[in-house]
Amino acid sequence: MPGNTFRKIFRLTTFGESHGYSTGGIIDGCPAGLPVNLAFIRDELKRRSPVYPGSTPRNEPDNIEFLSGIMNGVTLGTPIAFQVRNLKSRETDYDTLKNVYRPSHADFTYGRKYGIRDHRGGGRASGRETAALVVGGTIAKMLLATIPVEIRAAVSRIGTAAMPEDPESIISAIKMQQEHSVLQCPVDEVERKMLEQIEMAAETGDTVGGEVFCVIGGVPPGWGEPVFDKLQAQLASAMMSIGTAKGFEYGLGFGAARMRGSRHNDQMKLQDGQPAFITNHDGGIQGGISNGQEIYFRVGFKPVPSVKSLQKTVDNRGSETEISISGSHDICHVPRLVVVVEAMAALVLADKWLMAQSSRLDLLRK
Amino acid sequence: MPGNTFRKIFRLTTFGESHGYSTGGIIDGCPAGLPVNLAFIRDELKRRSPVYPGSTPRNEPDNIEFLSGIMNGVTLGTPIAFQVRNLKSRETDYDTLKNVYRPSHADFTYGRKYGIRDHRGGGRASGRETAALVVGGTIAKMLLATIPVEIRAAVSRIGTAAMPEDPESIISAIKMQQEHSVLQCPVDEVERKMLEQIEMAAETGDTVGGEVFCVIGGVPPGWGEPVFDKLQAQLASAMMSIGTAKGFEYGLGFGAARMRGSRHNDQMKLQDGQPAFITNHDGGIQGGISNGQEIYFRVGFKPVPSVKSLQKTVDNRGSETEISISGSHDICHVPRLVVVVEAMAALVLADKWLMAQSSRLDLLRK
Amino acid sequence: MPGNTFRKIFRLTTFGESHGYSTGGIIDGCPAGLPVNLAFIRDELKRRSPVYPGSTPRNEPDNIEFLSGIMNGVTLGTPIAFQVRNLKSRETDYDTLKNVYRPSHADFTYGRKYGIRDHRGGGRASGRETAALVVGGTIAKMLLATIPVEIRAAVSRIGTAAMPEDPESIISAIKMQQEHSVLQCPVDEVERKMLEQIEMAAETGDTVGGEVFCVIGGVPPGWGEPVFDKLQAQLASAMMSIGTAKGFEYGLGFGAARMRGSRHNDQMKLQDGQPAFITNHDGGIQGGISNGQEIYFRVGFKPVPSVKSLQKTVDNRGSETEISISGSHDICHVPRLVVVVEAMAALVLADKWLMAQSSRLDLLRK
Amino acid sequence: MPGNTFRKIFRLTTFGESHGYSTGGIIDGCPAGLPVNLAFIRDELKRRSPVYPGSTPRNEPDNIEFLSGIMNGVTLGTPIAFQVRNLKSRETDYDTLKNVYRPSHADFTYGRKYGIRDHRGGGRASGRETAALVVGGTIAKMLLATIPVEIRAAVSRIGTAAMPEDPESIISAIKMQQEHSVLQCPVDEVERKMLEQIEMAAETGDTVGGEVFCVIGGVPPGWGEPVFDKLQAQLASAMMSIGTAKGFEYGLGFGAARMRGSRHNDQMKLQDGQPAFITNHDGGIQGGISNGQEIYFRVGFKPVPSVKSLQKTVDNRGSETEISISGSHDICHVPRLVVVVEAMAALVLADKWLMAQSSRLDLLRK
Repeated sequence: MPGNTFRKIFRLTTFGESHGYSTGGIIDGCPAGLPVNLAFIRDELKRRSPVYPGSTPRNEPDNIEFLSGIMNGVTLGTPIAFQVRNLKSRETDYDTLKNVYRPSHADFTYGRKYGIRDHRGGGRASGRETAALVVGGTIAKMLLATIPVEIRAAVSRIGTAAMPEDPESIISAIKMQQEHSVLQCPVDEVERKMLEQIEMAAETGDTVGGEVFCVIGGVPPGWGEPVFDKLQAQLASAMMSIGTAKGFEYGLGFGAARMRGSRHNDQMKLQDGQPAFITNHDGGIQGGISNGQEIYFRVGFKPVPSVKSLQKTVDNRGSETEISISGSHDICHVPRLVVVVEAMAALVLADKWLMAQSSRLDLLRK
Repeated sequence: MPGNTFRKIFRLTTFGESHGYSTGGIIDGCPAGLPVNLAFIRDELKRRSPVYPGSTPRNEPDNIEFLSGIMNGVTLGTPIAFQVRNLKSRETDYDTLKNVYRPSHADFTYGRKYGIRDHRGGGRASGRETAALVVGGTIAKMLLATIPVEIRAAVSRIGTAAMPEDPESIISAIKMQQEHSVLQCPVDEVERKMLEQIEMAAETGDTVGGEVFCVIGGVPPGWGEPVFDKLQAQLASAMMSIGTAKGFEYGLGFGAARMRGSRHNDQMKLQDGQPAFITNHDGGIQGGISNGQEIYFRVGFKPVPSVKSLQKTVDNRGSETEISISGSHDICHVPRLVVVVEAMAALVLADKWLMAQSSRLDLLRK
Repeated sequence: MPGNTFRKIFRLTTFGESHGYSTGGIIDGCPAGLPVNLAFIRDELKRRSPVYPGSTPRNEPDNIEFLSGIMNGVTLGTPIAFQVRNLKSRETDYDTLKNVYRPSHADFTYGRKYGIRDHRGGGRASGRETAALVVGGTIAKMLLATIPVEIRAAVSRIGTAAMPEDPESIISAIKMQQEHSVLQCPVDEVERKMLEQIEMAAETGDTVGGEVFCVIGGVPPGWGEPVFDKLQAQLASAMMSIGTAKGFEYGLGFGAARMRGSRHNDQMKLQDGQPAFITNHDGGIQGGISNGQEIYFRVGFKPVPSVKSLQKTVDNRGSETEISISGSHDICHVPRLVVVVEAMAALVLADKWLMAQSSRLDLLRK
Repeated sequence: MPGNTFRKIFRLTTFGESHGYSTGGIIDGCPAGLPVNLAFIRDELKRRSPVYPGSTPRNEPDNIEFLSGIMNGVTLGTPIAFQVRNLKSRETDYDTLKNVYRPSHADFTYGRKYGIRDHRGGGRASGRETAALVVGGTIAKMLLATIPVEIRAAVSRIGTAAMPEDPESIISAIKMQQEHSVLQCPVDEVERKMLEQIEMAAETGDTVGGEVFCVIGGVPPGWGEPVFDKLQAQLASAMMSIGTAKGFEYGLGFGAARMRGSRHNDQMKLQDGQPAFITNHDGGIQGGISNGQEIYFRVGFKPVPSVKSLQKTVDNRGSETEISISGSHDICHVPRLVVVVEAMAALVLADKWLMAQSSRLDLLRK
């Protein structure tokens, strides 16, 4: 069970190196009869390439090809394979990186693990791999939309420019946003400060990290399996699978560690005769299972390690050296990751929905 | 694939409700020939019950019974089953909780998911379940000790009393500690403040949250599988599986989101002719694979939701009500979780070690 | 992913050596709300110990203990753990076998694989392990009975004494049988010949093999997943997991290899306005998926390798030797395996039922 | 966990409908550093299209494209994705089959399971899918060849024309064969009779079934995991996953059911000072684990259900009808399956090899 397959019933297996023939994947377990909106998939893929001052220029559109599992625009229940071809492979660009380990990249660790590595553009450990996540996640989104479950994420921090910490105000700003802004931050004023952070980093050839906040509405109570497949455990696993992610928290997160129980607890009431919650500090999950409230979480990302300034490193021949990484690297990649966070959340939830089909004998289909 | 099995090659499946016959599990995939130190397992189980002002009095020792997989004190390579019996089952204590949902517990969600729930002491969603994690994790620790890999955790925060934020000072304090202190915090002065936090919460029948910090030494480069089984993704999943966990970060974690790349990057040098790192901001993992440096991470826990003060809730018959939870509940359960965090980390690493056996053709055993 | 866990959603993990503390298992994924009939489980366990001339005398009843997952006789949706304790462990009986490899047993292979083995009574490779299969399978049967799916097996051959080869006559004999006969063969005349086979083998301290035939009614169309989880592939895997199984065939089996397509094909008609089949040569499965007809298959078992006559072998110290295996061994174990075959089939089908819940979007529960 | 992924550590996930864009798959878990011989893969793919009197004319070569996981002809340790494009898609050929269920095909069962089906050329349940198995299996073969393990299969029966039943003579004939003959049967005289069987079937527009026998040399002792991942259980599962397979037996198979234990047992001796076996009735596997002897097994296949003669069936609109299937269908597809049987065996064994890396603590790589 190597690591390129994600989740259990609705499952995605991905492949692809940065400069190989293509990247892509296979979705297995998607129920039959789901109409697939290709334009929506293309739009979601585009969200991986927001254009803003300091973003990597990308002339290359992600052309998605579906290889199986869909007939007349509807899923067949069989595996859905797809690929995004690499139109240009600029192999020679990378010759200087063949033998040297870029600091805080995966070069050294892949080299040690496998004894061989594809040095071109990060190989398997590349941002290109997220294309497959977005395609898989978008199909999961379309499946979830039939409930409907809605997943929306936004950039909540770049460097020291951040939205207010309290989840409520972030969630309400995300919901009010009509369309995706330049940096995918829903508050104009904060977004301006984020752009300043990027500009400041750009001036010195540097990069800067950030955070993505995600909120999910419409999940009914009962999704998530004790004890190791708790909904939050799988969301954490999903988010920490994204390259450069360094932290995950849901509900009040690390803030809860400072609190008293009487304050943190989500007390309950009746609303229209149904059980409801007075607060949502738990972030929509209790005991690993959704409680019907909004699910929300935050992911922290380190800055892209490809910086222009000179850094100390070693090569695979046992010498010390210095490296300056030029080329088309992002100053801040966090806006690109908003759609990736949503996609990974969708993959988790689609799987949990299907898994939840069999929890109760009285509700089984005979 | 329901959720009571953890990991792949070295795998633990657990069972048990709080007031059932026993809790326990099966470890499958432990290599043959490992001597099992029963006294060490008992000691680790005891660490789940630290005695401090405000801790739950526990007269009941965890008596572990091994049912299979070990002969003459050595593992056979076959499944290792074990159980910890529940000596007292005080069923009547829980009659008042039969129909009411305790706020921020798993009562409501289990009820909805399964249509039936064991209301006694939390049922499956109980702290008792961590006994199985500790037994499984301790066997994983013994396996890892043959390398040797060493896993050490400590309480780094209770409420507003915390060790300094920077990982380096926490790690060095943990390493200097000779034996487990009352609250499993390695700095006396901070521990005194933590005790104050607990006393203050106790005065009002309240509870308080906290954080556990963990550092792991001795992991060689090359453990962890791209892309969904990244080492950090599996550690995050493991930690977020522990009840009440709300956040996970490794390396500089959320702090990295505020940083510039040139500052965050772990530059490299030669040391005794071998590649080495100048800093360890990445927390020992790059591209999802261990790099040979110390691995360290932090987990945030919300306060125990069982508080004495009166709280609003509803019952399963559609009425609003109020509840005050008395009985032997922890004021702060975080010290109990130190050994659980270590155990879960050990389970992840044992699995990664075995998985790493097959990454390279040139190193396969024929 | 070591091998002691069976199937995916409804899954059984087993443990136990022949002379350890207990054998047992954990069922994970059984839907909540299933009443568990303990008397039925005990009856099924008894079927593992039929009494006939030449059977092993067993004074030891299989006392089943449930450790978790059931409250007030109903499943909770949480893991169902159980054990059957070994009341007597006659360790000294086995000292002579400590260093010698019994021919055609698993002694040599376990020794090589693990470098250590439990030599007492076969260790993990023992008939005792089937107790856990029967407990797990019986719970699966109870789940399937709610549809209702009915699984019935019988001994169709012992040595050269056999029922007629054609499946139709075997199936009709199985259905007419009112209760379990001595050898679990539904035709009296054949059973008498089978007893003769056993008596003849007994006279020379020998053992004899046989076959079990199984028929399953009530499975609706649509169970089974292409391409590697085809229903027949999982049934084959289940049956070949039973110790001493050497062959599996379903439908006309190897007989189909001699036939022409026009003759073998199951042509269709309408019956009460619904699609129906004119024959059932395919054994109820087409393209790996149930078609609503009866599923039937046959399993061949080699004779128990424990024979009294002197045999050549070697020991683990590199010497040739001879061995005669005395003690309470079966002359023919095939009648014991009837309930095991049914149990394994039930485990496969329960899993396929749960898996089939998520194949179609239009039938998903929201 | 839907069914399109095979095995655990060395794992293959496949995709593709008969008339979709392409068929293919992803191999995950292949160790890094394996040289990939593309010409050998192409040769193996060709073995799926033997040319003999009555075979389907195929102008379309299987053009394999590798999409990832290989650099400079060597595996990277990352997922190896590949596809074989469908050059012609003759959609209109299949319009007459859109609504009618072909007898003994998967049309009815797919229709019921998914509520939708790709009617063109069998959709997912097509012989084309075996291309992905052969590509995956051939890479597994190349991995195993480094030990070396050698896997060789042959046609041992077509209709009533068969090689002698005893495994020894079949194995010796297979070993003496220098190159693949027309029908992949190693005995000329038998092959002539097989051709007669095919000609006779062809005369009436009929089809005929057959058997494949496979022998595997070079597997060291210790591969296979008790109890559900027994080597024979996984081989059975693999073989029964191949479309039209109806039976599997290994060692003396069903023949063992007629035997006495004293006769069947493989007694042991010393050979060059090492433990060795006097016979090989067990087929190289004991207790689910390889014993170092040759592994051999037999698979029975039903005739292709596409026959020209008129057959009764129904359509999906609830009417009875008749059907005659013309077009380029095989009279006997069994010769095509020889390489598929070898491929599936290789997939099982590659996985078992990698799994066997972690069975013993004393042999783990640190």
